[in-house]
Amino acid sequence: MTYFDVKVLDSGLELKFWKQSRFNFADLRQIHLTCLGARLNILASIKAAGSGHIGTSFSSIDIMLAVYVYFESRKKLNISQNDIFFTSKGHDAPALYAALHAKGDLVDDELFKLRRLNGLPGHPEVGTQGVHTNTGSLGMGISKAKGFVKANRLKSVKSRVVVLLGDGELQEGQIWEALATASRDQMHELVVVVDGNKIQSDSWVNQNNPHEDLGMRVRGSGWDFKECNGHDVIEVLNLLRDTETGAKPLFIYANTVKGSGVSIFEDFPNDGLFYKFHSGSVSDELYEAATSEIILKIKGDKFLSSALENVRFPLLKTEVDPYTPKERPDSLITEWAGYLNEIMFKQEKIVILDADLSYDTGTYKARVSFPDRYVQCGISEQDMVSMAGTLALSGFLPIVHSFATFLTMRPTEQIFNNATEETSIIYMGFLAGLLPSPPGFSHQAVNDIAIMNSIPGMNIFEPSCALELRDSIHTAILKTNSPSYIRIGSIGIAPSYNMKFKKGSLNVRKNGEKILILTSGPLLTIESIKAAQILELSGLNIGVATYPHLNLDFSEEDIQFISEFKRVYVVENFIPTFSIFTKLKKLEFSGLWIDRIGLDGIPKNGWNDEVLLHHGLDSRSIANRINSNVE
Amino acid sequence: MTYFDVKVLDSGLELKFWKQSRFNFADLRQIHLTCLGARLNILASIKAAGSGHIGTSFSSIDIMLAVYVYFESRKKLNISQNDIFFTSKGHDAPALYAALHAKGDLVDDELFKLRRLNGLPGHPEVGTQGVHTNTGSLGMGISKAKGFVKANRLKSVKSRVVVLLGDGELQEGQIWEALATASRDQMHELVVVVDGNKIQSDSWVNQNNPHEDLGMRVRGSGWDFKECNGHDVIEVLNLLRDTETGAKPLFIYANTVKGSGVSIFEDFPNDGLFYKFHSGSVSDELYEAATSEIILKIKGDKFLSSALENVRFPLLKTEVDPYTPKERPDSLITEWAGYLNEIMFKQEKIVILDADLSYDTGTYKARVSFPDRYVQCGISEQDMVSMAGTLALSGFLPIVHSFATFLTMRPTEQIFNNATEETSIIYMGFLAGLLPSPPGFSHQAVNDIAIMNSIPGMNIFEPSCALELRDSIHTAILKTNSPSYIRIGSIGIAPSYNMKFKKGSLNVRKNGEKILILTSGPLLTIESIKAAQILELSGLNIGVATYPHLNLDFSEEDIQFISEFKRVYVVENFIPTFSIFTKLKKLEFSGLWIDRIGLDGIPKNGWNDEVLLHHGLDSRSIANRINSNVE
Repeated sequence: MTYFDVKVLDSGLELKFWKQSRFNFADLRQIHLTCLGARLNILASIKAAGSGHIGTSFSSIDIMLAVYVYFESRKKLNISQNDIFFTSKGHDAPALYAALHAKGDLVDDELFKLRRLNGLPGHPEVGTQGVHTNTGSLGMGISKAKGFVKANRLKSVKSRVVVLLGDGELQEGQIWEALATASRDQMHELVVVVDGNKIQSDSWVNQNNPHEDLGMRVRGSGWDFKECNGHDVIEVLNLLRDTETGAKPLFIYANTVKGSGVSIFEDFPNDGLFYKFHSGSVSDELYEAATSEIILKIKGDKFLSSALENVRFPLLKTEVDPYTPKERPDSLITEWAGYLNEIMFKQEKIVILDADLSYDTGTYKARVSFPDRYVQCGISEQDMVSMAGTLALSGFLPIVHSFATFLTMRPTEQIFNNATEETSIIYMGFLAGLLPSPPGFSHQAVNDIAIMNSIPGMNIFEPSCALELRDSIHTAILKTNSPSYIRIGSIGIAPSYNMKFKKGSLNVRKNGEKILILTSGPLLTIESIKAAQILELSGLNIGVATYPHLNLDFSEEDIQFISEFKRVYVVENFIPTFSIFTKLKKLEFSGLWIDRIGLDGIPKNGWNDEVLLHHGLDSRSIANRINSNVE
Repeated sequence: MTYFDVKVLDSGLELKFWKQSRFNFADLRQIHLTCLGARLNILASIKAAGSGHIGTSFSSIDIMLAVYVYFESRKKLNISQNDIFFTSKGHDAPALYAALHAKGDLVDDELFKLRRLNGLPGHPEVGTQGVHTNTGSLGMGISKAKGFVKANRLKSVKSRVVVLLGDGELQEGQIWEALATASRDQMHELVVVVDGNKIQSDSWVNQNNPHEDLGMRVRGSGWDFKECNGHDVIEVLNLLRDTETGAKPLFIYANTVKGSGVSIFEDFPNDGLFYKFHSGSVSDELYEAATSEIILKIKGDKFLSSALENVRFPLLKTEVDPYTPKERPDSLITEWAGYLNEIMFKQEKIVILDADLSYDTGTYKARVSFPDRYVQCGISEQDMVSMAGTLALSGFLPIVHSFATFLTMRPTEQIFNNATEETSIIYMGFLAGLLPSPPGFSHQAVNDIAIMNSIPGMNIFEPSCALELRDSIHTAILKTNSPSYIRIGSIGIAPSYNMKFKKGSLNVRKNGEKILILTSGPLLTIESIKAAQILELSGLNIGVATYPHLNLDFSEEDIQFISEFKRVYVVENFIPTFSIFTKLKKLEFSGLWIDRIGLDGIPKNGWNDEVLLHHGLDSRSIANRINSNVE
């Protein structure tokens, strides 16, 4: 029954995975084998997907399997048929899928559809068998678990509800907001397990935003608090069994190792800067080394090695291996990292704030150059934004960094409150827009513009190239009594050299006749220029211009420029908003025809190319759309 | 130097207040007198304003005075010239103003401009002398204080930063999010004082959302924790002095009594339902009784009574006494209270969630009738919304209650997350719109529609009368895989009897010719009907219609109806949003002329009438605007 299988990527790389449909609960050695096999599957699915979170998946997989073994035993003993487990941190989705696969909820092939359109979402979504709720934005887990507990009580259903949190996630305020009423309502059915791997995105939890005395904080909130070894399935299992009769909600801190099970993944570099396996896939070489280490462990075990006897290696051709860059590609992030360092040197009033995303928001250079003016806030966006507020009131220019979804939706009221003080604060929202799509809609900011546009006095920019980034920041700094939101598309960077700055707000990327594309951001600027190149083959010479200052009225010069065209296509990477629409409508003078190529609603997730195509925002779809209107 | 003065309201009521420009720091009995005099001033200013928070102002005034005495002493001793005090809860603004007045930052007359246009804001704003930051949305205080600490460190300015929190406010997650990095950065300059009056808006803190072991939670976060008597100025003062050399940030829980100093304000009714003096002014009789009690205390004290010898009673005529209703007026809140009870009886799947605003969100009846299906979440909006999410996933229909600003801006990401699960959840946002304006922009939701309209699948309703409320709820309940936002204007209720339901989405309130007003919500429906009546005097017979389902496309019947007019005025109580605008623009067929009478940016605060006039949304301004276009 137990055996390994192999899928072969186009590159020739063999992805080893472990096939098994069911736990064998009678044999605890079987669980140990499952823990190792699941690690192979996590790695295979991430390697096939081209991205995913290895470290947190390896640190949490044993806990997940222990919880499922525990639930299965309660089913068999008729204690409960309705136990609920879900993971709040969500970026451990590859582990969750490996565990669901081991449990029999997912079939083998599904593992290889991780982060694919209509496949397994980058963060858990309810469409997947065994997934109870959508997660991916940190901090919501305990509240969600309480909702399940309340629902089960109302339905008189006996159930234990176990939610897995990350240890960095404990920095979110909602976690602590959620504790007291669970205690008040004696939610003894509720179990929180923290995957205590002690490393968050940027660094060690203790250096970043320490827990201090976690047990005191939790017990002080009226909960029971226990610790255990999160890699000892039997210990976790016994702890869950032993605590069934407790009267209080239970909080377990499971000591784990990030990347546990593979020595290279367990390593934190000596430079102390970044753990290397928080997110992203690995090279072929690392993949081979890691799987070899796991298989060696299997072979080294007397019982497990007997399971290996059944290994088969059929060769199955998979689809094209997605793009996994060996070096970090140029983007507005890398550009920002250098430019930020430069302006902080020039402007002493700049203070930067970051919420555990230094690598992805480009603060990694400046935090070294200007440690006093760098505030690492941890995963605490509301705290970060309110701190920025009073720094601004005190005469500083705070630049606030996070991913665009988290930055615009978690601390919305705090941003509004700051805006009522009419100070200058720059909010930098990264990973903005439809792409990268693999992580799913919790990370795909498409309503960020609508929300930030509702904040009084907010200036909104979406640069597409290095020059526009610099220009946007320059303009934002000059706005001394109003805040600015800089939307940073993190994929690609439009070349600045083929741009002719106008005196107005438009930058002309390509001259043309009759038809003009107006767009913003690196992704759609690049796609639009490509679309124009495609249309040239059909004899159409269309223009492309970018308007980085999204909610600024067009100047006379802009209008003059636009009025030379017959048709204008607005190509947008976000849901429609009032001010952008109206400012274009103002231009709808006699003879000018305006159309929108954009998106609305919940964005799809999957590989970048397939999602871009799905929403009709790739260069070919844009070109087709324009061409179809011409014909 | 010390004496009392009187202002006389139009009603004949004498408002007694205490004039003093400076503390006498040498004489601690003087401080005791200040505490009593400040209470007179709090009461006089709230009575003149017609609204304000008495209980929390009386519980916190002694703490505030102690902090200012402490700061003054540090100034004199040249320890620090730059200490900062602010109140995070903000609804204790009347106490803050009384303290700033005692300190000499505000002059006598300013006290009587509480909650007036261009006067003293209902919650603190930075335009006021002595106010350091805008507050009013709970939970931001510690983060803001940390911003000040960081700024002072960067400027090498020696300063202690003291922030006052409410004890109910401790339920906000941001409070707990803020603690750890203050400890990490050894922010010994930072002092949190909690006004521990033990009663929040709905009930006792311990029943609502208990602190459990607050000291453990705070110490566990790496802070020092102390308790004191918040009404003993000397004790507070000594505690602040004694802790100056501590290495950790300091958290003081000051035991206080809500409404302290006046026996009727200290009373919690035997029915256990609501403390009566959380918000709102008092009747003339209660005012007289309360001031008499305070003055009796002054007379009963040997030292203090000598101060009374200087009392003068000049008669100063004040402006018109604002409307202070004796009985609770009919509104959509009272209507909802009854209707909610009714539908919960019919529909067992409804579960209601509330964030400590039972009285103002109308859950006060249903929470008694259906205690099992009522979840009191405390001031924990994020927790509330995520709980609602999983209740919905479990087959229930959650109806979530809070004020519209808090509900749409604090848990925005949680609402978005729920929306991605495509479940039915009803969000009820109260106090929505420009009015009531006295509390200020932290409570005036005017960007709620823009934000909720950015959430995928969100249905948006703004009923203006009982029938529209019922119809909106009915439609929302039928939307089984998408959420709904019901915007409740809390002032007034349009009569349902002069409404002719159409088959489409419009309800015709008044038939007319050539000119049509399209509006929503009770306030603007009433003002629009009044405007139509005013215009009738000029011989204009204009129509008025409401469209409660704000983001629904117009039906053929609606368009047929509208096309009979020449001009349409859209009268809106919120900032512009895309979908509403575009759906009207679709109607801009040949010959139809569309204009908007609405608002944008930060709303003004002051008395309702003056703010409505300021924004041109009162009936006369609307009539003038329409008339001017006709002429």
